Amino acid sequence: MENEAIEKTRGGSILQFAPLQSSIDEGFWHRLSSLKLNQWKTDESAVSITGFFAPCSHSRVSNHLNLLSESLPPESSEHSPSTNTNHSNRNRCVVPGTLYNTNTIEGFRQIDKQQLLKEEAEKIWNDIRDGKIEKDCSLLSRFLLTSYADLKKWRFYYSVAFPALVLDPPATLVNLKPASEYFNPEEAESVSIACNEWRNSTITAGVPFFLVTIASNSHARIRHLNEWKSFRQGSEKVLLGFYDPCHLPNHPGWPLRNFLIFLYSRWNLETIHFFCYRENRGFADMGLSIVGEALISPQEWKDLGHVPKAVGWELDRSKKLTRSINLATSMDPTRLAESAADLNLKLMRWRALPSLDLVQLAKTRCLLLGAGTLGCQVARTLMAWGVRKITLLDNGKVAMSNPLRQSLYTLEDCLNGGQYKAIAAERSLKSIFPAVDAKGVVMAIPMPGHPVSVQEESNVLDDCKKLQELVNAHDVIFLLTDTRESRWLPTLLSSSANKLSLSNEGKGPRLGCYFCNDVVAPIDSTTNRTLDQQCTVTRPGLAPIASALAVELLVGVLHHPLGMHAPAENSGLSERGSSEQPLGIIPHQIRASLSQFSQMTLVGHASNSCTACSSTVILEFQKNGMDFILKAINHPTYLEDLTGLTELQKSANSFDVDWDIEDEIDNDDYVEI
Amino acid sequence: MENEAIEKTRGGSILQFAPLQSSIDEGFWHRLSSLKLNQWKTDESAVSITGFFAPCSHSRVSNHLNLLSESLPPESSEHSPSTNTNHSNRNRCVVPGTLYNTNTIEGFRQIDKQQLLKEEAEKIWNDIRDGKIEKDCSLLSRFLLTSYADLKKWRFYYSVAFPALVLDPPATLVNLKPASEYFNPEEAESVSIACNEWRNSTITAGVPFFLVTIASNSHARIRHLNEWKSFRQGSEKVLLGFYDPCHLPNHPGWPLRNFLIFLYSRWNLETIHFFCYRENRGFADMGLSIVGEALISPQEWKDLGHVPKAVGWELDRSKKLTRSINLATSMDPTRLAESAADLNLKLMRWRALPSLDLVQLAKTRCLLLGAGTLGCQVARTLMAWGVRKITLLDNGKVAMSNPLRQSLYTLEDCLNGGQYKAIAAERSLKSIFPAVDAKGVVMAIPMPGHPVSVQEESNVLDDCKKLQELVNAHDVIFLLTDTRESRWLPTLLSSSANKLSLSNEGKGPRLGCYFCNDVVAPIDSTTNRTLDQQCTVTRPGLAPIASALAVELLVGVLHHPLGMHAPAENSGLSERGSSEQPLGIIPHQIRASLSQFSQMTLVGHASNSCTACSSTVILEFQKNGMDFILKAINHPTYLEDLTGLTELQKSANSFDVDWDIEDEIDNDDYVEI
Repeated sequence: MENEAIEKTRGGSILQFAPLQSSIDEGFWHRLSSLKLNQWKTDESAVSITGFFAPCSHSRVSNHLNLLSESLPPESSEHSPSTNTNHSNRNRCVVPGTLYNTNTIEGFRQIDKQQLLKEEAEKIWNDIRDGKIEKDCSLLSRFLLTSYADLKKWRFYYSVAFPALVLDPPATLVNLKPASEYFNPEEAESVSIACNEWRNSTITAGVPFFLVTIASNSHARIRHLNEWKSFRQGSEKVLLGFYDPCHLPNHPGWPLRNFLIFLYSRWNLETIHFFCYRENRGFADMGLSIVGEALISPQEWKDLGHVPKAVGWELDRSKKLTRSINLATSMDPTRLAESAADLNLKLMRWRALPSLDLVQLAKTRCLLLGAGTLGCQVARTLMAWGVRKITLLDNGKVAMSNPLRQSLYTLEDCLNGGQYKAIAAERSLKSIFPAVDAKGVVMAIPMPGHPVSVQEESNVLDDCKKLQELVNAHDVIFLLTDTRESRWLPTLLSSSANKLSLSNEGKGPRLGCYFCNDVVAPIDSTTNRTLDQQCTVTRPGLAPIASALAVELLVGVLHHPLGMHAPAENSGLSERGSSEQPLGIIPHQIRASLSQFSQMTLVGHASNSCTACSSTVILEFQKNGMDFILKAINHPTYLEDLTGLTELQKSANSFDVDWDIEDEIDNDDYVEI
Repeated sequence: MENEAIEKTRGGSILQFAPLQSSIDEGFWHRLSSLKLNQWKTDESAVSITGFFAPCSHSRVSNHLNLLSESLPPESSEHSPSTNTNHSNRNRCVVPGTLYNTNTIEGFRQIDKQQLLKEEAEKIWNDIRDGKIEKDCSLLSRFLLTSYADLKKWRFYYSVAFPALVLDPPATLVNLKPASEYFNPEEAESVSIACNEWRNSTITAGVPFFLVTIASNSHARIRHLNEWKSFRQGSEKVLLGFYDPCHLPNHPGWPLRNFLIFLYSRWNLETIHFFCYRENRGFADMGLSIVGEALISPQEWKDLGHVPKAVGWELDRSKKLTRSINLATSMDPTRLAESAADLNLKLMRWRALPSLDLVQLAKTRCLLLGAGTLGCQVARTLMAWGVRKITLLDNGKVAMSNPLRQSLYTLEDCLNGGQYKAIAAERSLKSIFPAVDAKGVVMAIPMPGHPVSVQEESNVLDDCKKLQELVNAHDVIFLLTDTRESRWLPTLLSSSANKLSLSNEGKGPRLGCYFCNDVVAPIDSTTNRTLDQQCTVTRPGLAPIASALAVELLVGVLHHPLGMHAPAENSGLSERGSSEQPLGIIPHQIRASLSQFSQMTLVGHASNSCTACSSTVILEFQKNGMDFILKAINHPTYLEDLTGLTELQKSANSFDVDWDIEDEIDNDDYVEI
């Protein structure tokens, strides 16, 4: 390390300082993103942050001011910034800083950098003047960070300043040499030992400014600044030492600037022997450390009593103030996707929906029965809302006519007989968002009115049990199949397990399930359907609307204080009551018409004769389990007899006129949720 | 061919017939699908079809009854079945048939096959009894086809019958030998020549039943059945000939059955010398042809005078009546996808929307400005409606947060900096439906209030011109970008070119465009937006609903008799007027609220001060072209000054209260179309 020629400056040259450089860790930007998204939101207030630095530790490299994730406040809601400022870490001497993170790139550009610098200089100046520096010298070096985080693109724009008060005229350097030359060998040895002690004590390791006193017997000690009074006029030689991040042999580093200001304005020193403390391999290095003598001429501001002007905005290599870093390139795509996924949702919490409960959404387990036109769109909308656990059940394969309406499939899925929809949907969801916990289950739903032979019986019962397990393992069941009878068993199982959206029990009357309005039990409705009836052929715009409404309804219910027990509300723009939830009203049923571009909200109360959710049926199921289900599957009239619908039907024959009206309304153009 | 041992049946054995077999060409099923989808729809009426057969033409293979696409009525609306029954084709002798195509597989299974056979037997019997057969002997062989076409899966279920009236007791065969043995060489030679003449005449080639007369000088002639009276008691030898599709040396083919019935019941023949005419390489083959003598005992039905019973349902190799064929496996995937694509739409015309104009939809050229959340969903819904020409314009790249809401992208599209959205969207649309004419255009839309430097000017003008060309080359322009100012130039260009949905001129007052309600000209609204404003963050269910509504609205307008000049209608379930179109009303604006689950329809009239569609602006644009646009882009107040909005704003300051209300309504939860 002694190889470098050390220019000894003699008499009259201007003292120049090597600027400090910043180095910002990716972790810093990650935490900043997270804080911005989840806590600060649109708040642009200044944030106290912490930089870390250490004395130069290599003969060829200066140390930087490092910003790490710990430089920022913790992400949890408890604000305990003290956990960050770890004074015991000798390589992380604390530098207090201030972050100005703006909401827009325009805001970032318009920041008045001179004004910020001036404000920072004032803080330093005040701390010097009122004696704070003697108590906590780390306040003498400060830094500023202005930034704009483009969270959509993982790009960060920023500028850094190390505010330094300016001596005008500048200090003159009359002597500068390696400490090993400045001291005699005994002194050098003793200074080394003292410095190592200082640096190894958890109490002093992070104290970057200090006194070096050397007794006439060459014995050196390192002392706190507040001991100055005891030594300034004593017999011992006193040097003003600081941790110097700079490695240059002929220039002291940036921290000396404010130190000189302090020494001149607070202690009235005009001749200063400074000691730039540098290390090698963790130990004091007297060859790398330098000692110089600075002469300070009278300063204009001292007479006027105002704050000296300040400099310190860091320039990058191409002399630009604004830097940018793009983290997208260095991130794992899956992880990037994951963090990007929640972006829009988290942004909604800034203003649009501050009460949005993303944790609740993420953990809601959704079972989608049917992976067709509705299933695909519901799954997509759930994912977009941040739901992470999605199970799709379907026993069909992707047919050629499907991809145009079923948004999780492409032509590729139709080839060679077609992939199973459940499997293809799972793969498609993961290709959109790899972190989704999607699972496809290839399985048919046993249906009443579709009798099974004795040989099939055990398979069908296995399916029933499997479906029951699935229903129990999820929080919400979506009925997205294309026949009425396939919705019966899931409705029954959901009602029995008290799952969401099928049978709510609030304070008001119990709300109806899908089957509550029917006076006929579900029977085989498929085999005698013509093609246009089979394909559930409707206007293509209907399914996206219906699916989106279903998911919006679920999100509304999840945010209601009563959850699945939320009472039914009807719409009415004019009468927004005080009971309204942040996401709006929660109707029980929505009936939409595309031909009228209108929507209606309805309430349907539970029927005591319901074939799927009435207590008669639930109790029978809970008593006889699979035997009951098998009976319902094999005997078309069993459910009607059990619930009393058979009786009801007889009396209903006199209401033929009403039935016709019901039929007319219930055409393809309508969708019920 | 003479290698086969020919068993000569002598005296007393029962005459047995080789059943005819059917062979149905794939083309038949393709045309059937098309007819079902486009013309028959739910109509299950019997359809007259035509089978083709020819005499056996190979010593080892029987000929089949062939059903080709020409067997069915032509697909165009003009019904000219005569073009099918080409009598001049010697290999396509016509067999009249009846098709019963059912709407459901259940209907197919429930067809009463015996009843159909009986009905067909009655036709044959009546034709025999009233002399029609003598005039047109092709009526003697008939066939039946019952079918169910599962158009979704390209699977066809079918059964075929060749109704044959039954002799009871059966005929006795007393002699059967090759014609070459039955005839002396001169006779054989002469019969050959006569048959070849008959088969080579366009008049007689397709006449499958005939008389063979042989004079004493061995001279043979083939004659029509109606010449029977002249020859039955003459000196010439008379044989009853028919085109025999069967190749077996010891059995005549199926057509002989009804021929014998005819000969016995109409001509009272009890001893019949029949001639089974067979060919080789297109010429009469006397070695393959056989001659036999059938003896018919008195029949019970002859006395009772009723129709003989009939048999004839064809069994496949595993003795099953119902066969099925799956065309999906043999079809080109792209072609399959194409035909499957329209399936749902064509099915809608059966009942739901008979007036649906798929041709009009297919040719409507749509320009989508923006390939984001709205663009993706609009493109999907357009494709599902059968729109085939879709151009997407966007200058952005797919970002990590996009795939969850933008339904044409996956994580794959985000890697390595991201694909251009326009390109990725084009590829995605084609992967869903390869026949779509999709095109992605990577381009920014020049925007007012975003001034351009002199250097950029020519590029921006190029963009303006390119956009103008695109607008002119499309019928419908969708404004799906996320800033107000990016919608200005397309609105202006569309208004100027009088394109759909932006500026309608009906009989009523002119309808407003996107900018008609605004009293400020579009300016730069992006640079000072915070992240949550930038991302157009809304509830995920909103975009699918808004996009679907936009497309449904377009489809409604396309089906209105006045097209883009359709007047604005508002919804109101109770007041369905007579003016209502099959697809429902056509509102001018739809305002939907997710928090209220409600929709409103509104009408906004055109403003004379509109910065995008008022005559002042259009005239100025048509006069000064790109200069005008450049002025609008570079000078923020130019448009306001030009349209008088500057004046209006001054007076509007007194309406601050109203503005607040407007602001409140226009929050993120609302969508305007």
